[in-house]
Amino acid sequence: MSVSVFDHPWLSGHFGDAEMAAILAPERQMAHMLAFEAVWSRACGRAGLFDAAAAEAATRAIETVRIDLADIATGMAQDGVPIPRLVKQLKAVAGSEAVHKGTTSQDVMDTALALTLQEASDLLAARLEVLAGCLDGLNTRFGDAPLMGRTRMQAAEPITVRDRVATWRLPLGDHLERLAVVRKRVEKVQIGGAAGDRKALGPKADQVVADVAAALGLAPTARAWHAIRDGVADYASFLSLVTGTLGKLGQDVVLMAQQGIDEIAMSGGGGSSAMPHKQNPVAAELLLTLARFNAVQVSAMHLAMIHEQERSGAAWTLEWMVLPQMLMTTARALAVAIEISQRITRIGRP
Amino acid sequence: MSVSVFDHPWLSGHFGDAEMAAILAPERQMAHMLAFEAVWSRACGRAGLFDAAAAEAATRAIETVRIDLADIATGMAQDGVPIPRLVKQLKAVAGSEAVHKGTTSQDVMDTALALTLQEASDLLAARLEVLAGCLDGLNTRFGDAPLMGRTRMQAAEPITVRDRVATWRLPLGDHLERLAVVRKRVEKVQIGGAAGDRKALGPKADQVVADVAAALGLAPTARAWHAIRDGVADYASFLSLVTGTLGKLGQDVVLMAQQGIDEIAMSGGGGSSAMPHKQNPVAAELLLTLARFNAVQVSAMHLAMIHEQERSGAAWTLEWMVLPQMLMTTARALAVAIEISQRITRIGRP
Amino acid sequence: MSVSVFDHPWLSGHFGDAEMAAILAPERQMAHMLAFEAVWSRACGRAGLFDAAAAEAATRAIETVRIDLADIATGMAQDGVPIPRLVKQLKAVAGSEAVHKGTTSQDVMDTALALTLQEASDLLAARLEVLAGCLDGLNTRFGDAPLMGRTRMQAAEPITVRDRVATWRLPLGDHLERLAVVRKRVEKVQIGGAAGDRKALGPKADQVVADVAAALGLAPTARAWHAIRDGVADYASFLSLVTGTLGKLGQDVVLMAQQGIDEIAMSGGGGSSAMPHKQNPVAAELLLTLARFNAVQVSAMHLAMIHEQERSGAAWTLEWMVLPQMLMTTARALAVAIEISQRITRIGRP
Amino acid sequence: MSVSVFDHPWLSGHFGDAEMAAILAPERQMAHMLAFEAVWSRACGRAGLFDAAAAEAATRAIETVRIDLADIATGMAQDGVPIPRLVKQLKAVAGSEAVHKGTTSQDVMDTALALTLQEASDLLAARLEVLAGCLDGLNTRFGDAPLMGRTRMQAAEPITVRDRVATWRLPLGDHLERLAVVRKRVEKVQIGGAAGDRKALGPKADQVVADVAAALGLAPTARAWHAIRDGVADYASFLSLVTGTLGKLGQDVVLMAQQGIDEIAMSGGGGSSAMPHKQNPVAAELLLTLARFNAVQVSAMHLAMIHEQERSGAAWTLEWMVLPQMLMTTARALAVAIEISQRITRIGRP
Repeated sequence: MSVSVFDHPWLSGHFGDAEMAAILAPERQMAHMLAFEAVWSRACGRAGLFDAAAAEAATRAIETVRIDLADIATGMAQDGVPIPRLVKQLKAVAGSEAVHKGTTSQDVMDTALALTLQEASDLLAARLEVLAGCLDGLNTRFGDAPLMGRTRMQAAEPITVRDRVATWRLPLGDHLERLAVVRKRVEKVQIGGAAGDRKALGPKADQVVADVAAALGLAPTARAWHAIRDGVADYASFLSLVTGTLGKLGQDVVLMAQQGIDEIAMSGGGGSSAMPHKQNPVAAELLLTLARFNAVQVSAMHLAMIHEQERSGAAWTLEWMVLPQMLMTTARALAVAIEISQRITRIGRP
Repeated sequence: MSVSVFDHPWLSGHFGDAEMAAILAPERQMAHMLAFEAVWSRACGRAGLFDAAAAEAATRAIETVRIDLADIATGMAQDGVPIPRLVKQLKAVAGSEAVHKGTTSQDVMDTALALTLQEASDLLAARLEVLAGCLDGLNTRFGDAPLMGRTRMQAAEPITVRDRVATWRLPLGDHLERLAVVRKRVEKVQIGGAAGDRKALGPKADQVVADVAAALGLAPTARAWHAIRDGVADYASFLSLVTGTLGKLGQDVVLMAQQGIDEIAMSGGGGSSAMPHKQNPVAAELLLTLARFNAVQVSAMHLAMIHEQERSGAAWTLEWMVLPQMLMTTARALAVAIEISQRITRIGRP
Repeated sequence: MSVSVFDHPWLSGHFGDAEMAAILAPERQMAHMLAFEAVWSRACGRAGLFDAAAAEAATRAIETVRIDLADIATGMAQDGVPIPRLVKQLKAVAGSEAVHKGTTSQDVMDTALALTLQEASDLLAARLEVLAGCLDGLNTRFGDAPLMGRTRMQAAEPITVRDRVATWRLPLGDHLERLAVVRKRVEKVQIGGAAGDRKALGPKADQVVADVAAALGLAPTARAWHAIRDGVADYASFLSLVTGTLGKLGQDVVLMAQQGIDEIAMSGGGGSSAMPHKQNPVAAELLLTLARFNAVQVSAMHLAMIHEQERSGAAWTLEWMVLPQMLMTTARALAVAIEISQRITRIGRP
Repeated sequence: MSVSVFDHPWLSGHFGDAEMAAILAPERQMAHMLAFEAVWSRACGRAGLFDAAAAEAATRAIETVRIDLADIATGMAQDGVPIPRLVKQLKAVAGSEAVHKGTTSQDVMDTALALTLQEASDLLAARLEVLAGCLDGLNTRFGDAPLMGRTRMQAAEPITVRDRVATWRLPLGDHLERLAVVRKRVEKVQIGGAAGDRKALGPKADQVVADVAAALGLAPTARAWHAIRDGVADYASFLSLVTGTLGKLGQDVVLMAQQGIDEIAMSGGGGSSAMPHKQNPVAAELLLTLARFNAVQVSAMHLAMIHEQERSGAAWTLEWMVLPQMLMTTARALAVAIEISQRITRIGRP
């Protein structure tokens, strides 16, 4: 069982997100890593770097290999990366001549990350669209209803529900635009080899890169980005911008749901063990929690930009600790915001 | 499978810590929550708040109950806390008269947290002692060896290994002193009831609190600390101070292990998938990663002090996301530092 | 005298940046606020919201007004914003009929911020270009020189200086692209009035907004962004991405400058009070410090997205504490990186 | 003029604190540094490390020296520390034989920091006491008044004002206890010399340290803490714990002051430029802002624990950027909380 709220046997009921969890699942990560290794063998075979027949055989063997995860974990404790053991297992079934040569651990893991982010971005984009539609629906239903405008937590002047909803809805369009840009900066193959300069590929480097990229549905790259992490950090910033917007939505809902304010009515709501009559706005509170969580984590992703030289184990692995959690947090926040918007039965003055 | 590096099927080989994981395991959390509920029934029975026989029967039933975790997870999605469903399950086997009455979700969960932190503190204290011994051992073996003192990353003047080791060793004594103080501020029962004022217990409040505290091995409290979180935030700060010290140790080891510097030799070391001859200082790098992770997380725990009124769901649940990870990080960092200190075969000028 | 390293009588010698300081200077902020108020009066006059002659007279009076800053500071202590007192002073010289009516504090201050960010963006873009040129120059001079590629702080395989410099140079192009996008999201007028809905402007709202925007050289807006802060938070993220890249440059320089590594030689360098012979890489260290500072601050800017309702004083003023410092940090880091690149007299194996 | 809210010509009206500003003033910092240098000369004279008469003359000259700050700033840009130039100035008036020898920049600056923290701690302790008294006064006046207990932002069960105030008041006692402990860990001389090992002092090291410590009213130390920063990071954590408590107070006041809730009445309150009738709870909002600011900054102070080797310029100077701001923030928050508690004219149900 897990220490993480995203996987925890019961806390995941509150924090978990099945669709993003499937995208981030270790099995899926392993599938991406194997996809890279399979494509790598084939591309190097085509480029004449590997014996063509051995390469094709290796690709096929890798495509159907079964990985011993316990062995990988043991290697991880030794090497700090899973790839040395993985390669050893692959060579055992696919031969040692046409496997992994010319690439390196970070190529495999970062390209797998790019594939993960591609799937994650699709999910997030879809949910942003759905949420935008839900908020448009709120406006259709309640947009003209009067609402007290409140500034600095004090009643200011009457506005409409549409004015309040705009602060939740408008940024979604910008977030979709941001995602379209930022995802392109990460959906690209990582290929550098041992020291990042693709030396082992010689004049065939561009061909191999193009081939691997095309096979995986990622963009080719002119260089390795082993130690150039602004794309990943920017992606993380995007995630936190999204949860920031949703945190504001959650904050507003919590405030509107107060007795004495009563500007919102919702179906459902959280029960209390001590006060059965009480309806807690647990979903809206969760949006606040998730926004603050991501706002804190984004620091770690920015700190992780500071690689030493051609690769920093210290900086790179900090991404592993944080980025998956930020993806889960953002996906969950979008799902919760959609749920809230669908559960609203009244918004505006009682 | 898990998104978290601490539980991940292979990443846990690098980041995981079996002993702390056992302390934080959901099963153990549930055991603590059940221990509270069992003791609660008994204490309220003794105080005359519950029928004595019904209370004693409830306690015994709770002590042997088997919990349906899937049902708890379902409730969690609804209520944002696991306790309403848990109580429902308990009442089904222990009767509804002498279960949970007068207490509330946060009492149960925070008291369970106090029990968790008690076990975690024992583990951390033990490891701090072991590490101190290991570093003393380093001094015994290598303390008088010459080493180039380096300030601002430049050679300054010759020092001894003892001088460098002192920067790792000396803070450990202070950390042990801090832990002795800070653990007392969290190893205490949480009892407040619905709105935190123990009203349901009337004049029997002190007796019940004392009874529950004694049975669980925690300190009694004069009031609920539902919305008073400085103790927990302080504990988190302590964790990050420990990993900060160990991060400095890791930084030094990484720097000493550079070719051209060669001030340290170690057995073991991480393998590379591209360069089999290479020995990567992955353990020392990990100390840096863990230190930076905790340094970032501590912000979240300080933010979580800002509760609204008698209980903030938004603030409280932010602790759930972060504190277990900080405990895992600290325990792992201590284990890694101990391992490093034991693997050092030379320290000082080559 | 100042507590801030950016203004401190001697620490500013290390941390300060005269050009960015001029952009952020209180006098300049006040000039922007007055520009808004002047343009506001004129635009409302043109739109028929104010008496035309009174409006034009007010504009002229505001354009030449001398502000009593001590009075503003006193009002600040009372109101938490400088505008009520500022408006009072303006009305004293420009009449009360055609001043500020229909707008609000946040309109004035955020539009002034937009003007500040416009100037700041120009400065940052120019410096990014200069730095890019400097790094291209490094490649011209030293790009083919051999360098030991280092991964995980261990010698890996030989590369060239060009490979290392690429990790500093390549992101600059992306940063310039990011800046071009992100600055458009903030260089826009803030006009909402008391509760953000432009109600006081009635059907003339679009005209007034267009007029004010044109006069100030900012983009018009369809709505107020009082409580929609993703643009500002995104801008802050951009700043930290830039310093992250420069922090990596600084980290590499510090490591290359070590005795025993000797991969770089530079003119200048910091003196030591105890060891006159020593040359400390203080500029490169500073890049690390500034990168970490910004990486931490970015959290605050993301947290500040969570406005309550139509305006949060708590969230808004957190931006005031942090964003100017991030701008100073980024400008200083760019200047330092340029200086370093110009002081390098050798890079590559000794 | 200053970019910092603490020194800004008008923003300081909201964020500034005159008493803490005086403690942190550059003039005062310089006075502490000179005090160290003066005492150093005398102590080394007494220990026979310097010629006795030359040392005494140097001490007297340093005690009355006038420092050219512009020259220090120029040196700062070169050296990254002010001390080389400062020493040069001192030697010009006090002779070169009996000045600074055996010590180093960090000794001077960290000992000055210890003196600053001593004064700051006195101020914070006094304000914590005053605030505790004010909150006790609130209880005397309003403690028995009924108040709706609110959990998760929903009305729960009636409590009393005393119950709510307890969540603000109780932690203050703990904070005073923490301060008493944590200040002892920083109010100690920093003496290490060039590489931190006091080598230049030889067998007289303990005597010199004791003498300097006694003269400055600080504790002596067995070793330098140049690269051992847990004391300073712990102090910063303490500061953020205090503002966290006050942020909770501010959050509660803001919520109680809402129309429709009306659980508090206060004299004074912030004016609006658009709505003259409005009373904004700007002081209470400020407590939230300050709490979040410190909660973010504490990360930087924990990151700054990771020194490389005997001294990290990168880590050390990060403290300079952050710690003074945290001190200002904490002092201001205490002043604001005191002010709020004194301005409350009613608390409890209307």
